[in-house]
Amino acid sequence: MATMASLHLKTPTHLPHSLSKLPRIHFAPPVNLRLRASSARTAFAAGISASLIDPDGGKLVELFVNESEKESKLNQAAGLPRIRLSEIDLQWVHVLSEGWASPLKGFMRESEFLQTLHFNSLRLENGSVVNMSVPIVLAIDDAQKNRVGSSASVALVDQNDDLVAILSDIEIYKHNKEERIARTWGTTAPGLPYVEETITGAGNWLIGGDLAVVNPVNYNDGLDRFRLSPAQLRDEFERRNADAVFAFQLRNPVHNGHALLMTDTRKRLLDMGYKNPVLLLHPLGGYTKADDVPLSWRMKQHEKVLEDGVLDPETTVVSIFPSPMHYAGPTEVQWHAKARINAGANFYIVGRDPAGMGHPVEKRDLYDADHGKKVLSMAPGLERLNILPFKVAAYDKTQSKMAFFDPSRAQDFLFISGTKMRALAKNRENPPDGFMCPGGWKVLVDYYDSLVPAENGRVPQPVAA
Amino acid sequence: MATMASLHLKTPTHLPHSLSKLPRIHFAPPVNLRLRASSARTAFAAGISASLIDPDGGKLVELFVNESEKESKLNQAAGLPRIRLSEIDLQWVHVLSEGWASPLKGFMRESEFLQTLHFNSLRLENGSVVNMSVPIVLAIDDAQKNRVGSSASVALVDQNDDLVAILSDIEIYKHNKEERIARTWGTTAPGLPYVEETITGAGNWLIGGDLAVVNPVNYNDGLDRFRLSPAQLRDEFERRNADAVFAFQLRNPVHNGHALLMTDTRKRLLDMGYKNPVLLLHPLGGYTKADDVPLSWRMKQHEKVLEDGVLDPETTVVSIFPSPMHYAGPTEVQWHAKARINAGANFYIVGRDPAGMGHPVEKRDLYDADHGKKVLSMAPGLERLNILPFKVAAYDKTQSKMAFFDPSRAQDFLFISGTKMRALAKNRENPPDGFMCPGGWKVLVDYYDSLVPAENGRVPQPVAA
Repeated sequence: MATMASLHLKTPTHLPHSLSKLPRIHFAPPVNLRLRASSARTAFAAGISASLIDPDGGKLVELFVNESEKESKLNQAAGLPRIRLSEIDLQWVHVLSEGWASPLKGFMRESEFLQTLHFNSLRLENGSVVNMSVPIVLAIDDAQKNRVGSSASVALVDQNDDLVAILSDIEIYKHNKEERIARTWGTTAPGLPYVEETITGAGNWLIGGDLAVVNPVNYNDGLDRFRLSPAQLRDEFERRNADAVFAFQLRNPVHNGHALLMTDTRKRLLDMGYKNPVLLLHPLGGYTKADDVPLSWRMKQHEKVLEDGVLDPETTVVSIFPSPMHYAGPTEVQWHAKARINAGANFYIVGRDPAGMGHPVEKRDLYDADHGKKVLSMAPGLERLNILPFKVAAYDKTQSKMAFFDPSRAQDFLFISGTKMRALAKNRENPPDGFMCPGGWKVLVDYYDSLVPAENGRVPQPVAA
Repeated sequence: MATMASLHLKTPTHLPHSLSKLPRIHFAPPVNLRLRASSARTAFAAGISASLIDPDGGKLVELFVNESEKESKLNQAAGLPRIRLSEIDLQWVHVLSEGWASPLKGFMRESEFLQTLHFNSLRLENGSVVNMSVPIVLAIDDAQKNRVGSSASVALVDQNDDLVAILSDIEIYKHNKEERIARTWGTTAPGLPYVEETITGAGNWLIGGDLAVVNPVNYNDGLDRFRLSPAQLRDEFERRNADAVFAFQLRNPVHNGHALLMTDTRKRLLDMGYKNPVLLLHPLGGYTKADDVPLSWRMKQHEKVLEDGVLDPETTVVSIFPSPMHYAGPTEVQWHAKARINAGANFYIVGRDPAGMGHPVEKRDLYDADHGKKVLSMAPGLERLNILPFKVAAYDKTQSKMAFFDPSRAQDFLFISGTKMRALAKNRENPPDGFMCPGGWKVLVDYYDSLVPAENGRVPQPVAA
């Protein structure tokens, strides 16, 4: 993944050769010489500032134990009740520990949980409001609750019982699953993927507290180097002297319509007066439903697209967003946007029906396709984020390429939905020339070829790329 | 209802004789001479101000057509498509027209509906936030939508086709009932009273717009004189020179535990330094579920309680809150509190499980009994309202009266739940002496006596008092 490696930087030891050749890389001036603009809109109105948007709460939260404290934390953990984390719990530990959910300091206590469910936002002690739309909670059952007893802290361990973190100053409160589901998804219909995966079988209690990560989460899937933390992304944007960062959340293969949109967005930002807008191309890396293309294949596909030169490596940072997917539409898109503020993005591209899916029971989309964009534009705590609605791109038969849809000559355009795209790839058919670069398309075809047919007629099991 | 009539004032023509005898009535100084404190907390910190809390949005909205415009509005309405309002729709017209939902200017448009569902609050143009937790919407079906066509306004008529109001600059948008129910109630279980009454059979569209009421809503049930608008209540509080107004929402008969709480609250406010705290005793007058005691009987019961001298008429205003009941617990209690800000209350008494009920399907309460109080204390837009949690009162057997529960001698107390109270009244049994004044109890017994037994085994039909 040479091309992708050149686009980001996990740690200085990964610094690729090609990076030194990039002409636009400049080190940002020290923080104290720069004007910190708390609002991108303000910054734009007042003349563009080269500094990044502030994290929520003013300071990026990182919840790692210092090397010097590690020994004492290990000793402490040895004497604590243990809670074993699921794979998705671990993804949330990852998310929390790097500050994607700043200013959250750990799994939610009840006051944070209730504010999230009812208001999609948290009021901080200074009276300011930050967005927080999906509950980041840890469920335990009666037996676990009994084991915790009156302990003020617990040790969080992985599936191998290896210590991950300590949760301290804990609070245990009721897990009303029905209410959580109804208020988060706007439905309680059976078949919501995240609900079935993590909530239905979960315990009737939630445990919140302050998180201190002793052993950071690694996935050892060959992709850890792409998992840049918000602090690392901010460093990278500053190194590149970005004066605007526009984030593009995705969990699907990139086609040329996406590329057109991203290129066009950069152009619009330049027209607005920004000198160096940088794209954060940010595939979601946590839990996804069974019929989504797995992360490893998506990353392979993104690599081909970038190799093909569809996006400019000099102004693009590709990295993995570690959050699991809720498929909670207008509620979840706020989380996707808020987390990117913490990573330094002040522009967020929002498409049709973000984080949406079909209704699990009825024959319709679960959410109104426009609600995500509308809710995002009105969400408390996101006022300083610039929302960029997705322009509709489609295949222009007269040009044999993806272009912005022109309703005055609608007959010239072909809409290729995700379902259609997947059907073509499954059947080893080719999309029209110019829909996706051939290398990227081949990855998709290979992915569907790799699927092990399930004997029970259910969704085939994906195999890692 | 001589005693009650002395406690409030619908219009100057209703000015009762006894009012002139009240020693504490003073006319407030003109508005421009008074310090307008926008926050009760600030007011208290900075020294108590005699002025009332500002309405949400700064100005009380009233949506009545002036006498001078009435003729032209009648002419306009004659040419408009008509929408016939249900009884509950009319109650909402009443609520909106008097400004209980200030700064709402009519039935919600989609942006207000979405903010209500997702954030329980509305962001105003000046960036400030007001609370708004229950959708105030008007549903129409396909046929009605077709009849509206491209008209920019519609006439709203009552069940007799008499004109009530004009809704202008309308917006029609989808009514996703499942999502509305899930996000408002935190459940989609069948059997929610307001849902079954108004949503399940409603149309698939919502129509929002600016409301102009041509013919104000009257109920002609002998209780209209108790229906003071927020403006009338504010006038009354100013006449009484109130420097604090504490609101008590109720939809049940008043027993001596309630009276104790209200008397105690006034004492606490005097201890805080307020000179003239006034109680707004504010029974809900809109739609309630079939097994609640109907408004006419409750008002009769309140009258007896007041005659009995349990509450001080000089510092109590009794009035009817015209809103229908959602039974939506922590979501709805915000609406109950917010509406009272608009009526001038800066203190709100909140009890256990406010606006709660049993789960319609499962054997448990629908909401956690503490969530209402917690959510209220954190709700956006309610920061300037002082929340007063209900102290638990119970029957103290050693004193033969209602007293605040003392856990150190728990065995001395008897808890008489609403269910228990209703069972006693139905069976013509008496509660312990001191639980409720005898006159008030007799009203309850009479009410249950009056019920016409239903032949199908369902809830008996209530008869007006």
